[in-house]
Amino acid sequence: MRQRLKLVIAYDGAHFAGWQSQVHGNSVQDHLERAFQQIVGEAVRVHGAGRTDAGVHALGQCAHVNVYPNRLSPAQWTAALNGNLPPPLRVLRCQNVSPDFHARYSAVAKVYRYRIWSGTILPPLEYGRAWHLPRNLDFKVMKRAAAHFAGKHDFALFAANRGHPEKDTIRTIHSVSVQRRGYSWSIGFEGDGFLYKMVRLMVGGLAQCASGKLQLDEFVAQIDRGKTAGARLAAPAAGLYLVRVRY
Amino acid sequence: MRQRLKLVIAYDGAHFAGWQSQVHGNSVQDHLERAFQQIVGEAVRVHGAGRTDAGVHALGQCAHVNVYPNRLSPAQWTAALNGNLPPPLRVLRCQNVSPDFHARYSAVAKVYRYRIWSGTILPPLEYGRAWHLPRNLDFKVMKRAAAHFAGKHDFALFAANRGHPEKDTIRTIHSVSVQRRGYSWSIGFEGDGFLYKMVRLMVGGLAQCASGKLQLDEFVAQIDRGKTAGARLAAPAAGLYLVRVRY
Repeated sequence: MRQRLKLVIAYDGAHFAGWQSQVHGNSVQDHLERAFQQIVGEAVRVHGAGRTDAGVHALGQCAHVNVYPNRLSPAQWTAALNGNLPPPLRVLRCQNVSPDFHARYSAVAKVYRYRIWSGTILPPLEYGRAWHLPRNLDFKVMKRAAAHFAGKHDFALFAANRGHPEKDTIRTIHSVSVQRRGYSWSIGFEGDGFLYKMVRLMVGGLAQCASGKLQLDEFVAQIDRGKTAGARLAAPAAGLYLVRVRY
Repeated sequence: MRQRLKLVIAYDGAHFAGWQSQVHGNSVQDHLERAFQQIVGEAVRVHGAGRTDAGVHALGQCAHVNVYPNRLSPAQWTAALNGNLPPPLRVLRCQNVSPDFHARYSAVAKVYRYRIWSGTILPPLEYGRAWHLPRNLDFKVMKRAAAHFAGKHDFALFAANRGHPEKDTIRTIHSVSVQRRGYSWSIGFEGDGFLYKMVRLMVGGLAQCASGKLQLDEFVAQIDRGKTAGARLAAPAAGLYLVRVRY
């Protein structure tokens, strides 16, 4: 009988080939599994709350693993794992959970943030951490467009349509927020679940509206009928942050 | 007769081998000189306001160059240079200046910031951007210690003593500030000039005081007499930011 351990994890997406295990071994999952193997001496499977693409950051990704009980305290696990992980990947905390906890299936909500830099020149310390979109974006239009995502909708229009087919594309967005401070924009989403590339496609749509390339009416109609005549725009991975997974 | 151009430059120090030209060519100066060479087709010397070590960041480093007049407007220079520079290095603006302007000798003050993260775990996005010092630091003690740097002093004790001898070690610090927000500390310095490694050695001293390893009285006495019995501590390069050069 093993003990189930919940991990809260943060990483700088610029350093890794995304969450999911890769042949070359530079995914977040690979690094975590190697750290466990270093500590316990055998292969341990790490189950994440969801995949993140290469370049996407996490402030509070979650995962679970099964370990031998009472081997280490949660605080000792945290310290031992961090001692075997590269600095751009940290375990923020560990917690003993019941065997029916599942990082993916027990999640009730996820919180994402997307960052845009709208100035002409992207500050070097923002490189890899925000979408550089040097346009005159209309704050009110973006806020109004974003409000239309709230609620229960069929988000098929905002799902990547190759390689990752989803049967059920109905999701509920609990809240959307748009904040701006100078050239720095932050768009927050909380929802019961997100389709593959959904946040990036939603942000791409908001950017098209806010820059005047897509009329708000047309955008809302697209959301309602789940179809677009034009090309969809996916915001780049580097501006996306998985902030929190709620259970 | 050439036109003198002043550049304001920002960079993420993690990507470069410091400011000064290096054999391997990955210094900030090397990248800038190559960018000019790409644009004007001949070698151009870039004169910086001062060197920064590998890992040190700049939000507002300054430099000057001599170029053929009226070739490009300042805004065109900015765009052309950025088109030939890696994204972690940006020219924020260019300005035509008189031929007696000198990036180093005309500078009247420099502003530096030093960042410390005092929590147990360094957040991945702070890696390379703050000194990870997981200690219980006393804010009041650090503030009181920092106040003793203000004014005109002989800072020989806070100068690297190998390879960079300075004849005159008298400097004036116009202001020092210590701010804290959770685990994130920010120490600001403005002065008429700084010796090699001076900010890092001052911050090392502040950290020794704030963590109780050095008594405030003893620290102040060291500053006054310019000598220390113990070892000096230089804070790492990664937490240092050159914020502005004033002319």
